[in-house]
Amino acid sequence: MSGVPAARATPAGGVAASWDRHAKGSTQHVRSIAGQQPITAYLRYRTTMQQQMAFSSSVRGTALPAKPRASNGAARARLAVRGQSQQAPRSVQTSGAATAEAVTNGIVTSPLFRLSYDTDNEHPDLTRSWKKTMKIAVTGAAGQISNHLLFMLASGEVFGRDQPVALQLLGSERSREALEGVAMELEDSLYPLLREVKLGIDAHKVFEDADWALLIGAKPRGPGMERSALLDINGQIFQEQARALNEVASRDCKMLVVGNPCNTNALIGIHNAPDLPARNWHALTRLDENRAKCQLAIKAGKFYTSVTNVAIWGNHSTTQVPDFLNAKIGGVRVPNVIRDQQWLKEEFTPKVANRGGALIKKWGRSSAASTAVSIADHLRSLYTPTAPGDCFSTAVYTAGNPYGLDEDLVFSMPCRSNGDGNYEVINDFVIDDWLRDKLQESEAELQKERDCVGHLIPGASKAVCAITEDTMLPGEN
Amino acid sequence: MSGVPAARATPAGGVAASWDRHAKGSTQHVRSIAGQQPITAYLRYRTTMQQQMAFSSSVRGTALPAKPRASNGAARARLAVRGQSQQAPRSVQTSGAATAEAVTNGIVTSPLFRLSYDTDNEHPDLTRSWKKTMKIAVTGAAGQISNHLLFMLASGEVFGRDQPVALQLLGSERSREALEGVAMELEDSLYPLLREVKLGIDAHKVFEDADWALLIGAKPRGPGMERSALLDINGQIFQEQARALNEVASRDCKMLVVGNPCNTNALIGIHNAPDLPARNWHALTRLDENRAKCQLAIKAGKFYTSVTNVAIWGNHSTTQVPDFLNAKIGGVRVPNVIRDQQWLKEEFTPKVANRGGALIKKWGRSSAASTAVSIADHLRSLYTPTAPGDCFSTAVYTAGNPYGLDEDLVFSMPCRSNGDGNYEVINDFVIDDWLRDKLQESEAELQKERDCVGHLIPGASKAVCAITEDTMLPGEN
Repeated sequence: MSGVPAARATPAGGVAASWDRHAKGSTQHVRSIAGQQPITAYLRYRTTMQQQMAFSSSVRGTALPAKPRASNGAARARLAVRGQSQQAPRSVQTSGAATAEAVTNGIVTSPLFRLSYDTDNEHPDLTRSWKKTMKIAVTGAAGQISNHLLFMLASGEVFGRDQPVALQLLGSERSREALEGVAMELEDSLYPLLREVKLGIDAHKVFEDADWALLIGAKPRGPGMERSALLDINGQIFQEQARALNEVASRDCKMLVVGNPCNTNALIGIHNAPDLPARNWHALTRLDENRAKCQLAIKAGKFYTSVTNVAIWGNHSTTQVPDFLNAKIGGVRVPNVIRDQQWLKEEFTPKVANRGGALIKKWGRSSAASTAVSIADHLRSLYTPTAPGDCFSTAVYTAGNPYGLDEDLVFSMPCRSNGDGNYEVINDFVIDDWLRDKLQESEAELQKERDCVGHLIPGASKAVCAITEDTMLPGEN
Repeated sequence: MSGVPAARATPAGGVAASWDRHAKGSTQHVRSIAGQQPITAYLRYRTTMQQQMAFSSSVRGTALPAKPRASNGAARARLAVRGQSQQAPRSVQTSGAATAEAVTNGIVTSPLFRLSYDTDNEHPDLTRSWKKTMKIAVTGAAGQISNHLLFMLASGEVFGRDQPVALQLLGSERSREALEGVAMELEDSLYPLLREVKLGIDAHKVFEDADWALLIGAKPRGPGMERSALLDINGQIFQEQARALNEVASRDCKMLVVGNPCNTNALIGIHNAPDLPARNWHALTRLDENRAKCQLAIKAGKFYTSVTNVAIWGNHSTTQVPDFLNAKIGGVRVPNVIRDQQWLKEEFTPKVANRGGALIKKWGRSSAASTAVSIADHLRSLYTPTAPGDCFSTAVYTAGNPYGLDEDLVFSMPCRSNGDGNYEVINDFVIDDWLRDKLQESEAELQKERDCVGHLIPGASKAVCAITEDTMLPGEN
């Protein structure tokens, strides 16, 4: 049994498997819940290479899984035509003792996810065609949006049925137990592609080697809070997280900022992560795009699958510009389908920008599910070749942009992808005078937001906050 | 424009497009929200056949959708190699006026979902290979479980990427606005397979022509409430819903009861829907199965994909029997892998049965996401051929069961499917003395529950409630 660390007792040296609760550099990793049931810390068990190799070789001897998740279509089909090996796995009776010892030591480790499963060696017929595990860090992981998104990520519907994932979840001291609950639910969902779940409250630990960082967590604006105060509070969070990413994430880590004000948070991120490519930062405007498509479909009396090439320009705020000029319905430009110019110019944008608020009024809470869907859409758009003549919207860094916009902003623009995870800004969208004016309004708002967070941007002049109008974020009103 | 009802004014005769708020037989369908924004009632617009034909023909002239949802892999691939027709669609400028008129008349119709989209004629290259739309009624549709499940159903991950769906959502007067919020979020999610959403609070309307009824809504047990009182209150709900299904659902409608006590609720359903096949009723024990697999994996130190052939027997309560005797890990029977008989016999079952409660303690709320996942798993298992040597668990009617159980119960047993939506009970599971005793305990509990609801079962003797022990439902404790 010595080669099977899966359920082993904690080595004398102490296994660094625990909530990453301590500041970077701390060597203390113990969470004391002695006496409680040995459930759920779901942490990455940092085995030595030797242990991993030993584990892999023990797994190599086990039988195939008889029934992968039905949804895993391709892998499932492959398995269906192969026989099942009936070779006995090694018995692993140490688990009971190990669990007890782990609790005795005050360390609650995940019995299931604590190993980094070696997909090259485990169940080779299932995993042979799998890609290298993608490490996805998620902040605000105990929140409502994540409660939808994490299951989408784990199911394979976002990154594909051949893409195993590791989830690295950042919570807070306050959300610790909730985060453990989320991990339990992920465990109970038996997603074959979910190979590792790591929980923590220290960004320097949680972001380690991340390929994606989905930055969802942010403070909502409290009653009476100035927008400048919100910019400052959330800006500090994103400054700190960007520094952590800069130090520990994969050198090609991609970032998607969802926490508001997301454009400016992403800009702060770019300037505080100088070693990561600026173009790898995104701020989410896909929900706005989806809502815009929906409203155009409603107005035209068409189903939304007919609506294409819809760009959201600018800030994820009420100054956003859903672009009806370049949008198409059934392949025809929208102004030739919806001839109600007054509606297009005056009602359409508020309908999109205020949809979140309308939903809160109905629903009593914010639109977590459709936000998660739009995050999934955003990610999928980067890993699927964009259809000819279509686009997707994402707020990205403006350096070198083809539309003459201020080159130091995060601004939503129409993009396309060849499916490799990267994007290019589409450079031939028609900009008429009306659209130009609207783009400049949103640009001016983002410049003001940037001025307000100068103290969070290395090398920038001191913050001068000139935001007077109290522009709202979608959903705030 | 006269042939395009998509956004038309309400005909003089009155369009039955509204919240189904009235008792069956009522002809009143008007919901007065005059003056409010014309959003979200998302109702099925009962066009006449003539109107539908006219709409279909108007759609026929439109161009292909340029970009279906990226996740719709197969359809997407097909489209990618086809050109886009640039033929102009008819302009549909009536929509603004129509919306206004609809509001004037006090009817708020869904601008988007109010038509039953004719998938045979609309976007033929996208929909040619699609199946007939599946109508799925869901109760408790504004609740937490549904908030996860509805998006899974709409995405295609449950019934397949070629299966369009209509969602028929039953709410309550209290949840009306929340349900409208859910519909708005579904709309904003742009699922191509979601062709229709219908909301209502009258089961006789909402269940009309349903192919599936997912009966999730039930009252939770309040403080101090006797279990017999819970049986009675929820039993009445399911009696009423079963009668409605019996009258208006598809003659091969399949039912999955999730609301607790789900086995006995399903039994009440069977006896109050004499015109529907008794074998079409299911009560959900798949979450228990998933949790059992997870616990066996943890104990064995294996990943859960190795664990197969796990049956849950009996009642979805603490008397449930997760079957380790027939279960396999890596193709080997569990007792030959986990040799800790004491754990298997005494700790394993409570770990599974109490998982919901442990989760509530952590999470502060019940396990909505993993319950929704298990419902999706349950449904998928009926539409995917079961792998040889494997099973899935579902609580079904015991008439003709191969294990000598009381033939008038809803009892969870190991089943398999050839993927056509039906199932058969697997008849060769090994039952040893220990397992036999456990099955009989759960059987006895279900018999007592049945005795308690005699007044809700036509032809049964009067209820005699002999439940003395206060057995808990998973998650209650």
